[in-house]
Amino acid sequence: MRTQVAIIGSGPAGLLLGQLLTKAGIDNVILDRASKGHILGRVRAGVLEEGTVRLLDQANASGRLHAEALPHDGFSLAFDGRNHRINLFDLTGGKRVTVYGQTEVTRDLIGRREDDGAKTVYEADSVAIHDFDSAKPFVTYEIGGKTHRISCDFITGCDGFHGVSRRSVPENAIHTFERAYPFGWLGVLAEVPPVSHELIYANHPRGFALCSMRSMTRSRYYVQCSLDDKVDAWSDERFWDELRRRLPKEDAEAVTTGPSFEKSIAPLRSFVAEPMRFGRLFLAGDAAHIVPPTGAKGLNLAASDVHYLFEGLRDYYADLSMAGLDAYSQRALLRVWKAVRFSWSMTMMMHRFPDTGEFGQKIQEAELDYLVHSRAASTALAENYVGLPF
Amino acid sequence: MRTQVAIIGSGPAGLLLGQLLTKAGIDNVILDRASKGHILGRVRAGVLEEGTVRLLDQANASGRLHAEALPHDGFSLAFDGRNHRINLFDLTGGKRVTVYGQTEVTRDLIGRREDDGAKTVYEADSVAIHDFDSAKPFVTYEIGGKTHRISCDFITGCDGFHGVSRRSVPENAIHTFERAYPFGWLGVLAEVPPVSHELIYANHPRGFALCSMRSMTRSRYYVQCSLDDKVDAWSDERFWDELRRRLPKEDAEAVTTGPSFEKSIAPLRSFVAEPMRFGRLFLAGDAAHIVPPTGAKGLNLAASDVHYLFEGLRDYYADLSMAGLDAYSQRALLRVWKAVRFSWSMTMMMHRFPDTGEFGQKIQEAELDYLVHSRAASTALAENYVGLPF
Repeated sequence: MRTQVAIIGSGPAGLLLGQLLTKAGIDNVILDRASKGHILGRVRAGVLEEGTVRLLDQANASGRLHAEALPHDGFSLAFDGRNHRINLFDLTGGKRVTVYGQTEVTRDLIGRREDDGAKTVYEADSVAIHDFDSAKPFVTYEIGGKTHRISCDFITGCDGFHGVSRRSVPENAIHTFERAYPFGWLGVLAEVPPVSHELIYANHPRGFALCSMRSMTRSRYYVQCSLDDKVDAWSDERFWDELRRRLPKEDAEAVTTGPSFEKSIAPLRSFVAEPMRFGRLFLAGDAAHIVPPTGAKGLNLAASDVHYLFEGLRDYYADLSMAGLDAYSQRALLRVWKAVRFSWSMTMMMHRFPDTGEFGQKIQEAELDYLVHSRAASTALAENYVGLPF
Repeated sequence: MRTQVAIIGSGPAGLLLGQLLTKAGIDNVILDRASKGHILGRVRAGVLEEGTVRLLDQANASGRLHAEALPHDGFSLAFDGRNHRINLFDLTGGKRVTVYGQTEVTRDLIGRREDDGAKTVYEADSVAIHDFDSAKPFVTYEIGGKTHRISCDFITGCDGFHGVSRRSVPENAIHTFERAYPFGWLGVLAEVPPVSHELIYANHPRGFALCSMRSMTRSRYYVQCSLDDKVDAWSDERFWDELRRRLPKEDAEAVTTGPSFEKSIAPLRSFVAEPMRFGRLFLAGDAAHIVPPTGAKGLNLAASDVHYLFEGLRDYYADLSMAGLDAYSQRALLRVWKAVRFSWSMTMMMHRFPDTGEFGQKIQEAELDYLVHSRAASTALAENYVGLPF
């Protein structure tokens, strides 16, 4: 098989890139080792920046989003027993975020891809990428024990942190930066109305908590937990009790509880790989960088990577210019580090750290107090939260 | 001897408080263990907030300041080989800072105090404070082996971090918060024109540097150094070479060097004692809190303490109301923690930390890059630098 762009990974990054390429008349094939059912079942992020929504518009995959998604003009920081609203719309001169589950984004993009008849290979075993430092890269994979080969002009690695793409780069060609945080997030999905129509990020002596939602009938809640914690140790009852303890009184009393249908613990990590381009291999999204979920930047960062990468590929196929592709890594990383910085700072400000000491704890309280009372500082938070320009 | 307010310490905090009290007709005595000559010879900070200047106006001690001081409308952050100007005047809607040496502030206040005939006891040995948890506190000290006693209504501890006032409080009545930074500042005073008419704060792989001045003919320069460094190991030549290495090329080439007449190493520390009031003893300035010099908040924080404390004392003597004095500690600490937070964040952003790791280093670079390119973030920096409102 031959294609112009081989895309490894059928998550939002790969699907969005594929859709933009298809629309531009550039042939592409997506490979994923997982099944379509598995991909559609993954529970992930749910807060989209305006730039991400615009890309979905551009990909003709935003029809259901505009009908069903919830626009949010603000969110709350809760600490010291009180809510402090960050008015995103007002602080940013009219910007907002859109709450729409990543699962739904994936579903919409897969639907559009199927309508367009673009090729996706699911359950591809032993995916391997080859000769990306040459002019003739190719990808191999197995289906039912039989090896297939895709020749292509470019390979794009959209296969996440654990994918094969980044791991195929020689160690001495890549530089990684990493911080692991000494806690995790215990997350619960439940078919109950959210406690608030906006998100609440809570800093509490017992640890961080987040009240989020997927829709007006489906809530997503998190509490900071130990890395040693096990999901089995958290009954629904224990989870709801712990969540309510970490919220201001009026919110705690307003929480609607119900049986959870998803419950998991995720560690928090910051990770960046540099560069993001190796010859004819380009990394995008989680394959190149991970941010902690505080601030909801992961999916949005994948989208801005795809934007830069698509521009480079489009220019290449329009007039054989390599300028955009040559600039890709630097352009993408400039924005990546801004989002990594923001996610890190939100994480540092909102969580309890086991070894921060009394001075560090007071500094955190002073940060929150300053932040919500200074228009300049609130604006800096808001402009990052709604997303810095591409 | 009897007075209304006994002031321990003849630094700017004690002198400013004394001057405000004298002007309000409230009798006060200042005690200091040092000689007048020693006090006038101390080299300290030199950047005054507008609030601090207003207090000096209020104290009738700002005549020479307004004639000789240098108003600064901005400063530079230097990193990655370039200067980025922070336009304080523009970002804060017309505020600026005033460069005028603390030594000069002290000289002006002492001169005004002498003109007014208010009493100061220099070279007071064995100063001790007594019964401040009763209605009849008093202070004792020795001159030439002879013990003297001052009865008073209130004792104000303006005697700095190492002074007797805070150390006189029972350990279980006071809570301290502290962070020591793993480096120091090597500072040099030289009779040479400053490299720039505004301050330059430089972040460089070799460490932090600061180009500052006392006047258009006297420069104050600093370089980050190891805590193990000894002044003797730093010849003037070595200092100038190191300073120039840490500056952008055009600044390095413009540095005028000359013999230093003061050279010293100071460790960097954040420290806060809570509360700031113990019965009839009130702490103000360095006696209660220390900030690292990054951001120039130490003297200005002493001034805002004095402002709150003076208001409390004035109200007490006007109508015997304890309301202002009862609120003093809480009001002062609210602003103290904001300045401690700012000084900490400037320190974290501008210095090289031995154990920050590659991720921390990249985050620092991303912070600086974001800061100078975001108007909101620059405004937050500027509003802190010119001083948050009292």
